[in-house]
Amino acid sequence: MHSTPHANPPRHVADRLIDAVERAGTPACVGIDPVVERLPEALQTAARNRREVVDAIAAFSLGVLDAVVGRVGVVKFQSACFERYGHVGIAALERLTSQAGERGLEVILDAKRGDISISAEHYAAAAFDRPATGPDGGPDWVTIHSYLGADGITPFLAWGGGAFALVRTTNPSGDAVQGRRLADGRTVAESIAEMIAVTGRSALGEYGYSALGAVVGATRPAEAARLRELMPQQIFLVPGFGAQGGTGTDVRPCFGPDGRGAIVAASRSVIYAFDPGQSRWAGRVSDAAEDLAEQVGRAAGMR
Amino acid sequence: MHSTPHANPPRHVADRLIDAVERAGTPACVGIDPVVERLPEALQTAARNRREVVDAIAAFSLGVLDAVVGRVGVVKFQSACFERYGHVGIAALERLTSQAGERGLEVILDAKRGDISISAEHYAAAAFDRPATGPDGGPDWVTIHSYLGADGITPFLAWGGGAFALVRTTNPSGDAVQGRRLADGRTVAESIAEMIAVTGRSALGEYGYSALGAVVGATRPAEAARLRELMPQQIFLVPGFGAQGGTGTDVRPCFGPDGRGAIVAASRSVIYAFDPGQSRWAGRVSDAAEDLAEQVGRAAGMR
Repeated sequence: MHSTPHANPPRHVADRLIDAVERAGTPACVGIDPVVERLPEALQTAARNRREVVDAIAAFSLGVLDAVVGRVGVVKFQSACFERYGHVGIAALERLTSQAGERGLEVILDAKRGDISISAEHYAAAAFDRPATGPDGGPDWVTIHSYLGADGITPFLAWGGGAFALVRTTNPSGDAVQGRRLADGRTVAESIAEMIAVTGRSALGEYGYSALGAVVGATRPAEAARLRELMPQQIFLVPGFGAQGGTGTDVRPCFGPDGRGAIVAASRSVIYAFDPGQSRWAGRVSDAAEDLAEQVGRAAGMR
Repeated sequence: MHSTPHANPPRHVADRLIDAVERAGTPACVGIDPVVERLPEALQTAARNRREVVDAIAAFSLGVLDAVVGRVGVVKFQSACFERYGHVGIAALERLTSQAGERGLEVILDAKRGDISISAEHYAAAAFDRPATGPDGGPDWVTIHSYLGADGITPFLAWGGGAFALVRTTNPSGDAVQGRRLADGRTVAESIAEMIAVTGRSALGEYGYSALGAVVGATRPAEAARLRELMPQQIFLVPGFGAQGGTGTDVRPCFGPDGRGAIVAASRSVIYAFDPGQSRWAGRVSDAAEDLAEQVGRAAGMR
C-alpha cells in the first residue's frame, strides 16, 4: 500500500493510478456513459428540454460517483455522452471530473482525441490545462488515437497527464484495419503497439509503467498476451468487461508479471444495474460496482 | 451553376459542397485555427483572462469569416483551438459555425472524432443535431478517424451530414503507421481507402460524390493519384496547402476526372496574413483568401 500526498512535484500519473488500484484492492474502473433513455424514471421525468436533460445526466452521474467511491479507485467518463449536448454538456462534464477528483477517484476521460502538432497540443491542453479548478480539476488520463503516429501522442505527455492510445478495439469492423497482416508478419495493431512502446519510454514512473498506456479490447486473450509482450511498460485500459463480452479469463493476459498494469472497465453492467422505476437505484449501482471490483480483483490476483 | 434552396428534403451534403465550390469558382477552403498569440495586437491586449481570450478569438474568427466570404465558399474550423478553453470555447465555436452558415459558407468542423457504436452516434449528434439553432446552425461536415473501421463511420452518415475520414496525413510520423506495406502489397492507407470507398457507396449525391469523403495530405502527388483511383466517389479534403508545403502541382491529382471532388484548405497563410500591429488586418486576410482562391482555382482548372 502506498500513500499519495499531493507532493511538489506531483506524483507521476502512472504511479498515482497504480496507487489508487492498490488502495481499492482492484483494478476495476466504472465507465460513466450516461444516456437519458436509461436514467432512473424520476430523473427522466424531470428532463423536458435540452438543458434539463443535461441536468438529469449530471445528477445521475454524480449519484454514480457517490455510489462507486470506496468500491473502485478509477472512473472513466465517456466524453461523447456529454459532447452531444454541446457546451452545456461540456460544462457538466467539467464539473463532474472535478467532483470525481474531489472524491479521491482517478479520472480517465474517454475522448479518443487524435490530431498532430499544434492541434494535438490544444487537445492536450483541453484535457489537462485547468488552471481555474486546481490540481483535481481535470482528468488524470485521456484516451487518444494512434493512426497519426508519435506526433499525435507526445504532446499529451508534456502536461504530466496520462494518455491511453488506441491499439486494439473489440468492434467487428476494427479487424478490417487493426487485424491486417503486414509484409513483415506483424498485424497493424502489433506495429502500433511497438510504436507506443518506444514512444512511452521517456515517461516512466517508479513502478516502471509509462504515462503512455494502451487501449486493448478484452475479448481476445491470445492477442492481449502478445500485445502485453510488445508493450511491457504500458498500462492497458481494457474496456468491454461484462456488457461487451469480456470475462475474467479474457483479461488475465492484460496484466504484467507483477500483477499490475491493467485497468478493467465496465459501464452499462454497473451504472444501469437497476430497474428504471426503482427509487433506490444508487444502492444497486453500488452493489454492481462491488461485484465488478470483486470479479476484476480476482482476475488480477488481488482478492 | 446550381441554386441551393433549402428544399424539403434538403439537398445532399456533397452536392451542397460542390455547388458552393462552383459558385465561388474555386475549391479553396479557409482553415480557421486561431491562437491568441497570433491575433492582431488590439485583440490580444484586451484578452486578460480565459474568458476574454475566448472573446478575442471569437471576434477574430468572425472578422475572418467576413473577410473571406465571397472569396471562398467553404471554411474549416479547427475544433481543438476552441476546445482548449473548455465549455466557454465550445460555446464560441457553436456561435461561429452558425455565423458561417448564415453567411452562406459551407462549414467543415475539423474535430477528428473517432469512436464506435453508441459513442459514435453521440459524436455524430454532437456535430449534426442542433435543434435549437436551425438548418444553418451546425457544421455541414466533420472530420473523423478510420482506425476503428466502418463501425466508427456509418453513424456519421445517418444524420445527413458529411464526414471526411482520415486516410493519409502529411506529418512525418504518420508514415510509420499509414505508409506501412501490407502482406498483399497495399499500404495501410490504401487498405483504409478501399474500406472508405465501400462504406461511402450508400451515400451518393447527384454529382456522384459521397457524403463520406477522405482527408488526404497534399505533399505526395503520386500517392494522391493512387488514392484518387481507389476512392473515385470521395471528395478529398486536402489540408497543408501553403504553410505545410503543398503546391498547385501537388494537389492536382486529388481532383476527379470531372475536375471536381477536392477541397483544398489553407489556414495560417491566410488568417495570419498581417503584421500583428496592423489595424487593417481584415483587408490583408481578404487579399490572402483571394490569392488562395486564385491559386487553388487554377490548380483545379476553374480559372
